[in-house]
Parts: sequence; structure tokens; C-alpha cells
Amino acid sequence: MSELAIIRDGALLAENGRVTHVGTEKELRNRIGPDWEVVDAGGRAVLPGFVDAHTHLVFAGSRVDEFERRSRGETYQQIAAGGGGILSTVASTRAASEAELLEQGRRHLDWMMRCGTTAAEAKSGYGLSLESELRILRTIRALHAAGPVRLAATFLGAHGTPPEFAGRTEDYAAHLVEAMLPAVVAEKLAVYADVFCEPRYFTVSQSRKIMLAARRLGLGLRLHADQLSSSGGAQLAAELGAVTADHLELVDAGGIAALAGAGVQPVLLPGSVYALGLAHYPPARAMIDAGLAVVLATDFNPGSSPTPSIPMVMSLAATHLKMSPAEAITATTVNAAQSLGWLGELGTFEPGKRADFVIHDCADHRELAYYFGLESAAEVFIGGRRCFRRT
Amino acid sequence: MSELAIIRDGALLAENGRVTHVGTEKELRNRIGPDWEVVDAGGRAVLPGFVDAHTHLVFAGSRVDEFERRSRGETYQQIAAGGGGILSTVASTRAASEAELLEQGRRHLDWMMRCGTTAAEAKSGYGLSLESELRILRTIRALHAAGPVRLAATFLGAHGTPPEFAGRTEDYAAHLVEAMLPAVVAEKLAVYADVFCEPRYFTVSQSRKIMLAARRLGLGLRLHADQLSSSGGAQLAAELGAVTADHLELVDAGGIAALAGAGVQPVLLPGSVYALGLAHYPPARAMIDAGLAVVLATDFNPGSSPTPSIPMVMSLAATHLKMSPAEAITATTVNAAQSLGWLGELGTFEPGKRADFVIHDCADHRELAYYFGLESAAEVFIGGRRCFRRT
Repeated sequence: MSELAIIRDGALLAENGRVTHVGTEKELRNRIGPDWEVVDAGGRAVLPGFVDAHTHLVFAGSRVDEFERRSRGETYQQIAAGGGGILSTVASTRAASEAELLEQGRRHLDWMMRCGTTAAEAKSGYGLSLESELRILRTIRALHAAGPVRLAATFLGAHGTPPEFAGRTEDYAAHLVEAMLPAVVAEKLAVYADVFCEPRYFTVSQSRKIMLAARRLGLGLRLHADQLSSSGGAQLAAELGAVTADHLELVDAGGIAALAGAGVQPVLLPGSVYALGLAHYPPARAMIDAGLAVVLATDFNPGSSPTPSIPMVMSLAATHLKMSPAEAITATTVNAAQSLGWLGELGTFEPGKRADFVIHDCADHRELAYYFGLESAAEVFIGGRRCFRRT
Repeated sequence: MSELAIIRDGALLAENGRVTHVGTEKELRNRIGPDWEVVDAGGRAVLPGFVDAHTHLVFAGSRVDEFERRSRGETYQQIAAGGGGILSTVASTRAASEAELLEQGRRHLDWMMRCGTTAAEAKSGYGLSLESELRILRTIRALHAAGPVRLAATFLGAHGTPPEFAGRTEDYAAHLVEAMLPAVVAEKLAVYADVFCEPRYFTVSQSRKIMLAARRLGLGLRLHADQLSSSGGAQLAAELGAVTADHLELVDAGGIAALAGAGVQPVLLPGSVYALGLAHYPPARAMIDAGLAVVLATDFNPGSSPTPSIPMVMSLAATHLKMSPAEAITATTVNAAQSLGWLGELGTFEPGKRADFVIHDCADHRELAYYFGLESAAEVFIGGRRCFRRT
């Protein structure tokens, strides 16, 4: 993860939205056709577009009220116990039309792209009823179809227990298995399923049932695991052959060994640790030492991680997870693409892959993680087309 | 600090770069002349420009190499002990021409303005010789003269002991008092003096001598105090009647009482705690409870706080200092302006003050601290002139 293939005075050629050649400017200069568009990066760092492998892209409203309450000392758990938290976003998302969801999702995607992201995973999970979950997933499909950012949809109906099932999580889990998952799959609205595996949300046993049903229906598995407690989430992800186990702030050594044994990729989300004002970050170094292909993602969501910025997450990784800037780049490009099955298309500069690249406003790739609070992307190209250019 | 005077559907009128009226759009509509330029903020939040009261604006190079080493586990103190840290930036800054310093300073200022800052304090301190300190201060003067961001210069010759005086900090302190301070004042290059009061940098006794000399020469006093140890810096600031005591991560109750008794404003710099990967933030709540007019600033510098973003600092304040979004706004506008003697000119919207205002890309002021990693400023006006507009 720490070795990047950096080409100084590099260049890439693209045709019909695909990379055809990668090398030095000197090597490739003669291959440029007379009528080709030449983009001069002016000595700045050019990277593959970031792949954000864990986002809650589509929801209505914000949770700035709760944010203010937390700044005054209330905890996330206290607010959730009082009916706030995920359920407050569920209420506003259920009340929103598909057009409103589309508009707000578009705004979130624009923020991500401004920060250099060109492909992302997007979860449902702020509906928690069949109808509203389908509306969210259709919104994700519409955002993907409109482009330019490529999206992969994950069904996270098991994000929490909806008010209609209050105190009956077991019944809601059965409803997910019997009604919601089949409907999502019938409409081909998701490629992954996810469960918030956590005491007070879904137990390991409930999570297993939902995940097994999803797997039978052909969905890939991603799992919110070991975020707020060490509860066996990582072991469950390994047992089920999940593609990823996400969060892992409180994973133990047995959990890391289980992930390594089963080839489950950890998706680390330091933005949520930061934004909740906590200090316990996931043990990234132990995972890298165990040979795991660590992924970093934003966890963009209105409650625990209101950042759409991969460079911000890279800053957190370098300062608080003790990952080097190079490791952070690997974790947000090639490793992230692999976790979404996109490695043949994205994540590196190789002939045949999509020409998704970003010119960052720095000469040294390490500055992406070094300066923080800035939007580094100067120009964003997706499929060879310029989609963003900053003033 | 927690009460903002928010005007819904508000408007302000400005003439010749000064605010003339502040009120609701309805109240002021009739006062708009036929040939006036009307700027429609479109329902977005409009705030006074941020005042960044602690920055190390002018230096050459970056410290991305050391940043990478720290991401691999070395500490700031280990790197400094090996000749890195402040002294590595001193070497590159001494080697830079005034034109190079001006160009890099210009770039830093542009970043700040993009984040909504319209006035700032700027310290020297990466020269540590008479000639190079004067060059830095002249660069600050040139940046201020070129505008549009208003700058106040602080002489921080006592930022560290230069190589020529290695092991002879006492002699360097005498040189500061006898040669450097008088030269800075003779050329009217600074309005404040500052000392890094910290064991292994300048002791309380050395700091007192330098500060007293600065005060005799008519400079206002700002003091780096109690950052890495609880060493009596706050008490010294109080004893000397300093305008501010800055950092204060490790200030004790006695120090807070001393600041309150003497009316010294604390300038808190959570960006440096974050960027050093530390967890001990300054006790902001105790200071607010003591009635202190707390200021928040970026501490922008290449070693310990490479962020030019006041909104990023507001995010840190809300998530890690338990300051409300409103308190964070007070701390970066009115309180910050007061700490620089600018309250008659800046920091609030009042008739007669400069028309320095920023349209932020949000409808609710609390979003500035809530979303993080984004540049929120959509349009920046300084002295009534539009100086930045984002695409």
C-alpha cells in the first residue's frame, strides 16, 4: 500500500473515454493526433479519481440541530435515545418527494466531485419502509444514470428499526427478509446489502439472517461492524464472506485475523470518529500489518460524518490513523475500486480503464493529506470529459 | 458569545466601501439608489468576513516530508530535535528571495480568502536573523498594501533559537532586545511582538525580558503560552498586560484566572492539536465560563497546522472544544477583531464599519461548523468590492 507508481513529467492519452497509453510526456508526445485536445496539468499532481466506498448519499434535510446539541455536550447515543439520530433523518426523508431527494443528492454529489471523487458507493437506509427505501434506491439509480459520477447502490434497510416496528426488531428483520429484500432485488435496485450490526441496532444473529437472505438473492455483502462496541461484527463478515467490513473502530485482534483469513476488506471511516468528537480511531496499522487491503471512505451522512471530502479523510488517516499519504491514496483509489468490483474499470491509470482523473492543486501528492480544510481538485475529468474546473 | 444577532431576510447597504445601513430587506429596500449594484445572496447566510488572529502567513517551502515522517509515528519533538521542525522552514525561508516569499504568501492568502477570511494577523518568525526577519515583515507589509485582505504584523523573532546561537538562547534573547526589536520598530514593520514561551524554546524569564523590551518600544504583546507544557505562560501574559495568550492547551485553572483578571484574550488554535495527532484540546468551556472573550484562529503554519480554513477550525471547536456554532462565529469575528484592535472597523455589521462580508453556500450559519472539508465561501466582498466568487 505504501508504494505508488509515480511518473514524473507524466502523461496519459485517452480516446473515447478510455485510457490508451500511460507514460512520460516525452514517450507519448509523438502519439498525440493533430486534432486532439491537450490538457496541460502545469506540473501539478494528477491522480485517478477517488472512489468513495462508503456513503449515505441520499437523504433529506440535515442534522444541524443535533450537531449543535452535541457541541453543547450531549452524546450521539443520548440524542438517538430521545428519538433523534437516524430516525430524525428517516422522518424527513420519508416526507421528501423523489424530486427533492434527487436535488439534494445532486448537491451532495457535486460536493464530492469538487473534492476529487469520481465514483462512489451509495447506501439507502433513511427510509426503513419498503416504499421509502425503494424511492431512495431509485434516486441513486437516477443519479447514476444522469452521471457523471458512477454509483453502486447498497440496500441498507437494516440501518435501524423504524417507528412502526418499535421494540420489535426481530419482526422488522423478518420483514426485511421476506418483503423488502426480494422487492429490491426484483427491481435490480442494489448490488450490495448492508446491516448495522451493533447491539441496540441489529444483533449478530439478526444481522446473519438478513445477510444470508441477501446473499441467497445474489447481493454482495458489506457490513457496519464493530463501530460502537466489539461485538463480533468482523467475525460475522468473515463467516459470511462479505466483501467489506466497515468502521471497525473497536475491532479486536481476533476480528482482524478473521478478516485477513477470509479476505474481507476493511473500510475505515475516520470522519465519523472525528465528527462525533471521539478519540478512538480504528487500528489501521494492525490491519495493514495483517496484509489487509484497507479502504478509506467518507461515510458521508448527516449524523456522524458530514464530510464529502476524501482529502479530509486522507488528512485524518495521516494524522490519527498513522497511515502515510501514499497508503491513504492507495486506500482511496485502487483498494476502494477493488472493494466495489471496479478494479477492471477504475482505480489506476491503465490502458482500457475509464479516463477518470483529477488535477490537484499541488505539485506533490502528499500535500493532499497535509493541507486540510481545502478543496484540492482543480479539474475533474470523468470518462475523458471535463466535469469540473475551479476558478 | 452564544447569542448572535441574526436578521432573517436581512440586507446591508454600503457606500464607498463602508456599511451605511443594516436591517431587513423590507426596511432597506427604499433606500437603494437607482444605479446601485444589488447583490442577491439568494437566501444564503451572510456573515462578516472572518478575522484570523493567529497565522504564520509568510514562509518558504512546506514541511510535507516531516508530515510523512510523523504519519509513520515520529513525534514533532523528535523531528525538531533532529534539526527539523521550525529550523527547517527557517533554512528554506532564509534562502528565499522577497519575490518568492511574496508569491507564496499571496497563495496562502488566496486560500484564506477562499475560506472566508478578510483580515488576519501575520507573524514573522521563520527568519530568526535581523535581515531575514525584516524581509518577512516587509513581505507582510507588501501583501497588506496590495490587499485586499487586511493584515496586522507581529514580530516573532523569538520563535526559536537560530543555528548561529545554538546552545546560547540567552545571548539570542539579548540580541533580540538590543538589535532586532529596535530595527523592527524603527522601520514600523510590526504592531505586535510575540514569544514562543515554552521550556526548550524561551523560558518565562527570557520571555519576560523580550516582552518588556517590546512593550517599552510601543508594541502590543501576544504570547505563545502553555502549548506543550503548563509552564506559567498564561500568568506571564497576564502580568505583562498582553493583548492575547495563544494556544493554552495545557493552561491550568490558575492561568485561566490570571487571564480573566487581566483581561487577556485567549486565542485557541485547535488546528495544531488536530494536525499533530494529539488529543488534548484547550479547555475552551472553562475559559468561556470565566467570562473570557475567546478567539479561535487557524495557526496556519507549515509544521503544526497546515490549514488556512476558519470553517475547519469552527468544526474542530464544535466537535472537540464543545463550543456551539454560534460561539465559534463570535470567536472568529467580533472577538478576533477586538484582539487586533479592529473592532471599530471590522468584525460586525454596523454603520461606519468596512463592508467586509461573505456569502456562504448554506442557509443556516451552523452549517459552517457542521460540514467539514468543504470551502463554504461562495462570494467574498472586502471594502464593498467583490474579491472572490466560486464557480
